[in-house]
Amino acid sequence: MSTHAPSSPSSANDTLSYEQAGVNYDLIDPLKISAQRAAAATGAHLAGHGFSEVLASRGESAYVVDVGPFYIASIVECLGTKTLVADEMRQLTGKSYYDSIAQDTIAMAVNDLITVGATPLVVQAYWAAGGSDWFGDKQRAQSLVEGWKRACDVCQVAWGGGETPALAGIVEAGRIDLAASCTGLINPKERLSVGDKLGAGDAIVLLASSGIHANGLSLARKLVERLPQGYLTEIEPGLSYGDALLAPTTLYSPVTEALYKAGIQPHYCANITGHGWRKLLRHQGKFTYRIHTVPPVTPVLKFMQEHAKQDDREAYSTLNMGAGFAIFVPAADAARTVEISKACGIDAWVAGQLEEGEKQLLIEPLNIRFSDDDLQLR
Amino acid sequence: MSTHAPSSPSSANDTLSYEQAGVNYDLIDPLKISAQRAAAATGAHLAGHGFSEVLASRGESAYVVDVGPFYIASIVECLGTKTLVADEMRQLTGKSYYDSIAQDTIAMAVNDLITVGATPLVVQAYWAAGGSDWFGDKQRAQSLVEGWKRACDVCQVAWGGGETPALAGIVEAGRIDLAASCTGLINPKERLSVGDKLGAGDAIVLLASSGIHANGLSLARKLVERLPQGYLTEIEPGLSYGDALLAPTTLYSPVTEALYKAGIQPHYCANITGHGWRKLLRHQGKFTYRIHTVPPVTPVLKFMQEHAKQDDREAYSTLNMGAGFAIFVPAADAARTVEISKACGIDAWVAGQLEEGEKQLLIEPLNIRFSDDDLQLR
Repeated sequence: MSTHAPSSPSSANDTLSYEQAGVNYDLIDPLKISAQRAAAATGAHLAGHGFSEVLASRGESAYVVDVGPFYIASIVECLGTKTLVADEMRQLTGKSYYDSIAQDTIAMAVNDLITVGATPLVVQAYWAAGGSDWFGDKQRAQSLVEGWKRACDVCQVAWGGGETPALAGIVEAGRIDLAASCTGLINPKERLSVGDKLGAGDAIVLLASSGIHANGLSLARKLVERLPQGYLTEIEPGLSYGDALLAPTTLYSPVTEALYKAGIQPHYCANITGHGWRKLLRHQGKFTYRIHTVPPVTPVLKFMQEHAKQDDREAYSTLNMGAGFAIFVPAADAARTVEISKACGIDAWVAGQLEEGEKQLLIEPLNIRFSDDDLQLR
Repeated sequence: MSTHAPSSPSSANDTLSYEQAGVNYDLIDPLKISAQRAAAATGAHLAGHGFSEVLASRGESAYVVDVGPFYIASIVECLGTKTLVADEMRQLTGKSYYDSIAQDTIAMAVNDLITVGATPLVVQAYWAAGGSDWFGDKQRAQSLVEGWKRACDVCQVAWGGGETPALAGIVEAGRIDLAASCTGLINPKERLSVGDKLGAGDAIVLLASSGIHANGLSLARKLVERLPQGYLTEIEPGLSYGDALLAPTTLYSPVTEALYKAGIQPHYCANITGHGWRKLLRHQGKFTYRIHTVPPVTPVLKFMQEHAKQDDREAYSTLNMGAGFAIFVPAADAARTVEISKACGIDAWVAGQLEEGEKQLLIEPLNIRFSDDDLQLR
């Protein structure tokens, strides 16, 4: 059970935090705990079919089942509220943006699925509209189809099918609730990366994000109220805030597949989504994660941080701040991991390493420390 | 790509049809066709991973991939608008009904997945609420968790995890958009039933429905406006219309699993959801489906038919009319298939057989004929 967006500590004055942006995780968390407990009790059913769950995948980003010759990983992921930005921007610019939105949706599923070592094979589309008329807008619908197809091409997955319900009375009129499910294989089984191999000395390689991706949108939308020109505010010459927000989420599966082909076995991966860099602490082990190199901050995130008047600690605790995905590899493979990512067109940095010690993330260039207490994901 | 609810021809006077209930499939269908075409073009990506799609599964209820030792089937399915009935009934009775709603949601996915011969293994939950407060209602949230768990127990599937996003601005306040994804295996591969084995002489076995299941709810809700006592109208002594509508959808996977253990290999299956009995014509082959025995109509469906003033033809073309699932088996296995279903607690009937001839469904006891033109599902 994962919730979609980060919680963050409230803070002073006109700093804008997540609670203020309308997401209250205290209300969701008791349900999550109850659901996780009930879900855990169902793992035993697999024995009746001759299979078993990979217990360590409970609490990870994708659920893994051992079916003998390989593992199967599966997931369903929601896009969140990024469509609301696309809908506003469409009214302002006449562009549809749903090709980018499609990629965002697939990225939410694929980027999580690959963290456990899986090769994504099949994506299913979940497009629940507020009414049949949503699908009657041909430009937008066609844009959604094309973007979905293109993201499947990038990830080399088969688009299996999906659902296009019209849910008047549940989904708001004129809106669409987008999600993707993804099924993949961990094959050969040695590719499984649910954290048992992670250890002191491992390098932390960070992969560039393209922008906000699909987390932090509640905050991004709230911020618009403070901008006299709203989404059309230029964050740099020729680039509006809205257009920058709508840069599609980077798809990282080409990198994890290329690493496998190059003989590099990640010890662990973290998709940096909600909770920002606190996601680097996701693994259950007790390690100190020491960061010596911080990637450049994507302009739209820098802009958001400034206008939300967040200090670095708050910004790095909620947004990806330029790093969309973390790969933990043996130190000897770190430089080559960066090269391989760059060859896939995704900038990357050897950003730090794991050490024995207290469970904490030290972002040294920024003098930030996050402890285990700052992340309660499971 | 499947849409959630049936289309049906409009008809005279105060007869209530699906278009009148607010679902317009003419607007959805062009998108579906475009999406299906784009999706079909992605199947070739599997070759890069050493696998291939089962082409015949395109257009079937679940998508199937050949991964060597077995097939993997996957699906995502939306519940639809049944929660709106639960929400209304809760205000009237104080009961939550979300345990039943949970079963409905899982049934939408599992009952489709099993049609291709798959054993469901993992279910993922998609619970997208209109706001965090939805999850703060403990009685309702707990009921959803318990019902979800119980349905997983019945189907012997592992609940892998899921998403619980709060989507204010997309999902209406106080509402929830529910869906389930499901992954399963077809193992051994001989269990694959995508229709190549279906032939003249095969028997049609119909399995009882528990009521409306989760299709036809737009019509059911529209009908309430005609009832002075609304959902509390008694359809039989002690049973309100609302309570009857909320009977949870029957889960059919225990039957398909029991059939396999008994050595019975269905030649084809059809989940009778949207499009009612027209779903019996789902297979692409040209056969005459002759029905000699019609199961008793569930009281709530009989009530709906009467109050919507539908003739039998319209009712059987949109509602399940007492039959929730069809299994096509060799004639010699028909009686035993019925016995096995009954042993699983689900009533069943040998209802008819396939013959060479024009593609049509003849429901002889009711003098109804549906032709190929009446069903455009693919």
